[in-house]
Amino acid sequence: MKYGIAIFPSKNLQDKVNSYRKRYDPHYALIAPHITLKEPFEATEEELQEQIAFISSIANETEPFSIFINKVGSFHPVNNVIYLKVNDSEQLKSLHDQLYTGPLDHQQPYNFVPHLTMGQKLSDEEHSDVLERLRMIDIEHEETIDRFQLLYQLENGSWTVYETFRFGKGV
Amino acid sequence: MKYGIAIFPSKNLQDKVNSYRKRYDPHYALIAPHITLKEPFEATEEELQEQIAFISSIANETEPFSIFINKVGSFHPVNNVIYLKVNDSEQLKSLHDQLYTGPLDHQQPYNFVPHLTMGQKLSDEEHSDVLERLRMIDIEHEETIDRFQLLYQLENGSWTVYETFRFGKGV
Repeated sequence: MKYGIAIFPSKNLQDKVNSYRKRYDPHYALIAPHITLKEPFEATEEELQEQIAFISSIANETEPFSIFINKVGSFHPVNNVIYLKVNDSEQLKSLHDQLYTGPLDHQQPYNFVPHLTMGQKLSDEEHSDVLERLRMIDIEHEETIDRFQLLYQLENGSWTVYETFRFGKGV
Repeated sequence: MKYGIAIFPSKNLQDKVNSYRKRYDPHYALIAPHITLKEPFEATEEELQEQIAFISSIANETEPFSIFINKVGSFHPVNNVIYLKVNDSEQLKSLHDQLYTGPLDHQQPYNFVPHLTMGQKLSDEEHSDVLERLRMIDIEHEETIDRFQLLYQLENGSWTVYETFRFGKGV
């Protein structure tokens, strides 16, 4: 089965991001707005049990932290993805890095650029039009993150939450 | 905010149910296939904290249990909903009933008929056609349930998981 790890931010932020995703993100219906902490990986049921214990110990040793958002960015020309940039955060980076160690030692397909996708799979022209427009959005947002989730992917491409990990608590 | 409580069954069962929902359920993209344990209810952030502690204690005192599915049913004429019936289960009934007590003492809009929706909001004619076809499906399924989830609803109608409760563990 294919698993992934993500943070779902507050309802307010999800609603805001969805107002753009609805138009610009074909994955809109497959998963709620999220910050990917670990890209999709394959695991057996047995591997998963070890991984969950490991993730739980990481969560247990992590304190809730703040994230700040004030900028729209793009992964063009690598990918035509437009996103809300989550400002550099040592805690977020450390959490991400730990989720690629031990029984989760997978190859990282990209450098870690924490973000919330607003649009993707746009044509070059559409990308440049939409980016120009979205760059003018006035956004300044701060919130506290106190949990993250382990998800698995269904055959239709959508994601279901399997487990919630709370900082300072583990599973 | 609006919250709800549901069980997400195994990936296999979700995939099976989604193969029907894709055609017959307009809520297909809003939530993964699930067994509703508690209908949507409004709660403030403060109420929620008390409710989570209460749900956690219920989960803590519940043992994992089996569910059996071998029949397609319909809520017609009340609602044109076609579903996989989850066979009567004392544990499931008890869990449901407890989730309507204490700080979760809300009115129940329906009697508890545990099910996985395959289709809904069908016209009378469509309902009768589809039901006739789906009643011929040969299904016999058993699985163990060891967790359930608290979700909240976004403005677009979709649901995000807030917390996972595991039986025998609480939060």
